[in-house]
Amino acid sequence: MTRTVYVNGSYLPEHEATVSIFDRGFLFADGVYEVTSVLGGKLIDFAGHAARLQRSLDELEMANPTTEEDLLEIHRELVRLNEIDEGLIYLQVTRGAADRDFAYPEDATPTLVLFTQAKSGLADNPMAKTGMKIISIEDQRWGRRDIKTVQLLYPSMGKMAAKAAGAHDAWMVEDGVVTEGTSNNAYIVKGNTIITRHLGHEILSGITRTAVLRMAQEAQMKVEERPFTMEEAKQADEAFVTSATTFVMPVVEIDGAAIGTGQPGDVVARLREIYIDEMRKAAV
Amino acid sequence: MTRTVYVNGSYLPEHEATVSIFDRGFLFADGVYEVTSVLGGKLIDFAGHAARLQRSLDELEMANPTTEEDLLEIHRELVRLNEIDEGLIYLQVTRGAADRDFAYPEDATPTLVLFTQAKSGLADNPMAKTGMKIISIEDQRWGRRDIKTVQLLYPSMGKMAAKAAGAHDAWMVEDGVVTEGTSNNAYIVKGNTIITRHLGHEILSGITRTAVLRMAQEAQMKVEERPFTMEEAKQADEAFVTSATTFVMPVVEIDGAAIGTGQPGDVVARLREIYIDEMRKAAV
Repeated sequence: MTRTVYVNGSYLPEHEATVSIFDRGFLFADGVYEVTSVLGGKLIDFAGHAARLQRSLDELEMANPTTEEDLLEIHRELVRLNEIDEGLIYLQVTRGAADRDFAYPEDATPTLVLFTQAKSGLADNPMAKTGMKIISIEDQRWGRRDIKTVQLLYPSMGKMAAKAAGAHDAWMVEDGVVTEGTSNNAYIVKGNTIITRHLGHEILSGITRTAVLRMAQEAQMKVEERPFTMEEAKQADEAFVTSATTFVMPVVEIDGAAIGTGQPGDVVARLREIYIDEMRKAAV
Repeated sequence: MTRTVYVNGSYLPEHEATVSIFDRGFLFADGVYEVTSVLGGKLIDFAGHAARLQRSLDELEMANPTTEEDLLEIHRELVRLNEIDEGLIYLQVTRGAADRDFAYPEDATPTLVLFTQAKSGLADNPMAKTGMKIISIEDQRWGRRDIKTVQLLYPSMGKMAAKAAGAHDAWMVEDGVVTEGTSNNAYIVKGNTIITRHLGHEILSGITRTAVLRMAQEAQMKVEERPFTMEEAKQADEAFVTSATTFVMPVVEIDGAAIGTGQPGDVVARLREIYIDEMRKAAV
């Protein structure tokens, strides 16, 4: 089946889906994005993603080309047209096309692009049983990681470095402490306490992070939002990452050192189960 | 006249020039670029730009979609088709289109895009007579500024901050010292000495920078490649920037403080004249 994607008001076969070479997303990485998971044909935490999109746009003084209501309709139409039961919807807004100039154009129309990726095994992900291996790399990204921009070259390079090292992903370290993973938030577990870096310009405020921290507290776990070092991570009982598409995913090895027993732990398994259950119920 | 641009082997009217929404330049800022000036219908320092392009590609393990010889032909054809006497040619290479994945695709074909911008007054730029006003901003870019990627959102934001402050551009400061301007290298002059930040991952190795430093030494000026602070800049006799399209451009005000007499100085005027003269002669 040819994928149907959405570009500026039109539903198109993917091979016809293009943007101008003058689009500022292409020339300046002047764009933001969101990824929303689909489980059972329904959207996971759509409202959270729509709210963060608006925040990213506001931070960059970029116009929103649509409304939350219309955006929801586009998401649902793409799920229907592409018969997505499990997978994700990627959404990108850019400042639009204009002749190249570092200064923002005064009259450009924002570009809106969405496409789906079918992915079986989001909920029943075999990685949840075996866990991820991660390496550490220096965090060399720009200073405003709280804005979800398409400046993703360094995370891409990090993913390739992890692959080359026989690992699944990389955690980034800045000033001696872990910021986050290349495309996820990073956590360690010590006893009944979940530790993850506090919010700020240094990390993305993950939509899954917000939900999981709330659920952890509701489940009587203790949450500490503070920096942690790689040394502390290696001494942890468990470790994990969260993201819109991996949900809650155990980390069993960091820079070659086994975490806890070297197997996915109970706290992470429980959080994953709670998250998926609750999110399925609340899906729209 | 409708501009004719180049996209992956085709010369097209600009409004038909598109790339896939799956192009990694659009989705990941996974692309690099060069800008070459045109004076009298000829290319300024083309070989320098072609060499730096190859270096950027190598650093990112990205394939070069063309050869230097073919690239020169494309540049010349665009100059001819668009009747460019003075202006610039913008060139961008991306890793190509592939379904979205942080990991580099194994079989993508690199994307090659070029377009022209006619600009009268590159050589006879009125700003060379009045000078630029600049502000300082924190350098929040990623750590590999020596690679000329399209991750240009922060420089764009800096240009807008300068505009809002009634200035022309911004110099970026990191760890207390100036790195470079938003789209140029930054220099101060003290007596017969030209001071500019040494090369490294922190700044771009400007093609114009290389040429101007060589010419300065040939003209018996002293060159110091080292960091300098904004305080030192404010005490300088003269200040300037260099880039492929502004050549050598005086800076007369930094954060509201006049530099030297507050007027473009002799050293900068001389360097600009030498640069333009020599480059015109060597243009291809």
